[in-house]
Amino acid sequence: MKNLLLLAAALPAFAFAAPADDTAKLRDAALNDTLALEIVEGLTTEVGPRLAGTEAEARARNWAMKRLKALGFANVRIETFDMPVWVRGAEKAFITVPFGQELKVTALGNSGATPETGLSAEIVAFDSVDALKAADPAKVRGKIVYITHRMTRTQDGSSYGQFGAPRRAGPSLASKMGAAAIVVRSIGTDHSRSPHTGVQTWADGATPIPAGALSTVDADLLERVVARGKPVTMTLTLTPRQTGIHQSGNVIAEVLGSDPAAGIVLIGGHLDSWDLGTGAIDDGAGVAITTAAAKRIMESGRKPKRTIRLVWFGAEEVGLFGGIAYAKSHAGERHAVASESDFGADRVWRFDAALPPEAKAVTERLKLALAPLGIAKGLDVAEGGPDMGPIVTTGVSAVDLQQDGTRYFDLHHTPEDTFDKIDPVQLRQNVAAWTAMLDVLANAPENLIKSTSK
Amino acid sequence: MKNLLLLAAALPAFAFAAPADDTAKLRDAALNDTLALEIVEGLTTEVGPRLAGTEAEARARNWAMKRLKALGFANVRIETFDMPVWVRGAEKAFITVPFGQELKVTALGNSGATPETGLSAEIVAFDSVDALKAADPAKVRGKIVYITHRMTRTQDGSSYGQFGAPRRAGPSLASKMGAAAIVVRSIGTDHSRSPHTGVQTWADGATPIPAGALSTVDADLLERVVARGKPVTMTLTLTPRQTGIHQSGNVIAEVLGSDPAAGIVLIGGHLDSWDLGTGAIDDGAGVAITTAAAKRIMESGRKPKRTIRLVWFGAEEVGLFGGIAYAKSHAGERHAVASESDFGADRVWRFDAALPPEAKAVTERLKLALAPLGIAKGLDVAEGGPDMGPIVTTGVSAVDLQQDGTRYFDLHHTPEDTFDKIDPVQLRQNVAAWTAMLDVLANAPENLIKSTSK
Repeated sequence: MKNLLLLAAALPAFAFAAPADDTAKLRDAALNDTLALEIVEGLTTEVGPRLAGTEAEARARNWAMKRLKALGFANVRIETFDMPVWVRGAEKAFITVPFGQELKVTALGNSGATPETGLSAEIVAFDSVDALKAADPAKVRGKIVYITHRMTRTQDGSSYGQFGAPRRAGPSLASKMGAAAIVVRSIGTDHSRSPHTGVQTWADGATPIPAGALSTVDADLLERVVARGKPVTMTLTLTPRQTGIHQSGNVIAEVLGSDPAAGIVLIGGHLDSWDLGTGAIDDGAGVAITTAAAKRIMESGRKPKRTIRLVWFGAEEVGLFGGIAYAKSHAGERHAVASESDFGADRVWRFDAALPPEAKAVTERLKLALAPLGIAKGLDVAEGGPDMGPIVTTGVSAVDLQQDGTRYFDLHHTPEDTFDKIDPVQLRQNVAAWTAMLDVLANAPENLIKSTSK
Repeated sequence: MKNLLLLAAALPAFAFAAPADDTAKLRDAALNDTLALEIVEGLTTEVGPRLAGTEAEARARNWAMKRLKALGFANVRIETFDMPVWVRGAEKAFITVPFGQELKVTALGNSGATPETGLSAEIVAFDSVDALKAADPAKVRGKIVYITHRMTRTQDGSSYGQFGAPRRAGPSLASKMGAAAIVVRSIGTDHSRSPHTGVQTWADGATPIPAGALSTVDADLLERVVARGKPVTMTLTLTPRQTGIHQSGNVIAEVLGSDPAAGIVLIGGHLDSWDLGTGAIDDGAGVAITTAAAKRIMESGRKPKRTIRLVWFGAEEVGLFGGIAYAKSHAGERHAVASESDFGADRVWRFDAALPPEAKAVTERLKLALAPLGIAKGLDVAEGGPDMGPIVTTGVSAVDLQQDGTRYFDLHHTPEDTFDKIDPVQLRQNVAAWTAMLDVLANAPENLIKSTSK
């Protein structure tokens, strides 16, 4: 019978008679959710871009407070923290020799600045960070370094790690080698004129230099010009600046549980966004999905065993400041399990669960509850998501609902991260998956707290 | 036998034994063409944007002269003409009330200018030009008019006529009704932040006012804000200017025919492009396809009966100045048939032919020659293309190779009109279609000159 059930669980909903239990009912009702779409529509329309530590992010927090209170959550509050704030300036790039061409560029997080009138230098091009590393520093000194890559489209987003190296490691390396500036091919899978920004942090001993990303199309153009074999000169203008320490904050709301000893189910997404788009898929969708699911549990007619704590984290994009601040100020509390939604708004296709050994049955129940949505069990390793990292590394269990990232890096950190990119049907599937997961996790009679938890 | 051949002609190449004649051989060889892609790569890489009447367009003409001479064409020359030149300035738009949001905007051709510091006014929104026309002018006076539309994706591009009205007719109407400025939803089928520019001409009695297009995504955002029912204020900065009369020109090259009395086969595309992209699909592809096809006829080993005259027209985008200048200066010559490639780089799917009654057999031969490429016979009406319009209206025959425009208006007149958008396989199909058509038209023993020709 067990084997039969497992087989059946792998079949799509229409062929599978879901167990007539509360989880299934809640899950299927969530496929008609409207709240998640309303939240992401509201946030992108009424607030828009909300760079960490800026007045826009503060407006977003106020918007969130009002919305979460109106939705009836308990203990709605803002927990502030301080952080260094970097803001974008003018952004221009031109090839001047051998042909005049304008290139679309954007500064990477923490980029240094060129003079207002720009910086002109010869381009020295590499096809990887390793190639730059192997280069003679004399050939790099005073030049504008360009690094390309061949990031490929993947469902699980795994190409982001390796092919993100030019953005993450390139600027510090170029700086140490004496480059005047660096531009990288945008870390993205699109073919568009929208460059992808993203954070990078200066390594010890690396002086900030201007560091930008060209759109993939403009990177193609530069590569075609370089391929002609003549010296190529670029004039680059990037005038961002560090503005000092400012306030950010996490917005927190709860669905209170009946058993404090069972620990908290910690969920959420991040409220801040990059400044170029309106932060729909990154990560308006994440806060919207998790909020809509938490509200469904709150209104299920049954008080959950565990408290569900929903966090709209601040300052994720620029260095996980919200997740770090949360882990610090809530270190003494009992966290049962953590899970974040921060990979767009497309359907969940797999789940990974790292629960204590005694909670094996919980993973099995998750499998049954999620299979009708087309979600298969994946790994027994889970990270919880970027903002959950700091608390998860203290020994908290984690479950990851993996979203389909096939088109995520077309839009990620670009002006194109806007409301129209959200597919309402896939968004609702996310809400259903989160509702089912929350119902299982918040009510599991088994212990979810790892024995290794600090 | 005839019926059987006609049936066979409708089948794809692999199922159809092409007549073993010269046209079929030339056509099939052209499916391996590399020249068209080289031309559009070169033009977009080494010249880039080439707005009519500017120094960039002059550079493009020199590039074209050099390339066409090197390819071995006869009578390669530039025919200059004068035209008024409008150039883009700063472009910014913000919703300031009830929410602060930046919108991506671009000026429409011949737009008036706002002050350098921008112009702030309330938005008054309409869902069509007709709705604006029906409005009380008192409600429009001093406001920024917004007009939306619901342009749909079509293979033949037929939605451009009707849904282009906000751009073409909106500005003059808004001006006459006393509006301070107008922004329209971009005439496009994409969902992106790239606004679509395009020409508009002030009607008699209409004073130029600032006239811009919002990207479709930003138009969506504005519409969502307007839908909230509160007054909406926009700050718009557009500082384009008319720079007076400057020189543009047509670049002309020929494949000489053996029978001047048979008339010229006039083909080409336009060399100028809008300034936002690099003019790959509009219309680098058109000059590349027609040039590659003409070169294949030139090198076929057989001198054609008719001279093929290839024109890379100047100043199409801003008012068909090149086509008008050509028709004027070549009015006295015998033109047999005219055809332009100016609808992107995607495959030809249909052909329309308006040939004299005595050339019915020519149309039948075109049908046979094009069918193996998946091209069906369409209408007996043909326009010849935008730059051919002025000469065609004097009574010249025309054939149109209709390209698949399904994705054309995603890219049209935007920064996204770049080399990477060209599909090499579809580009080669175009070269094959043009080669086959040219071989048929240039060598037809039948008369192609209309009796109504002036």
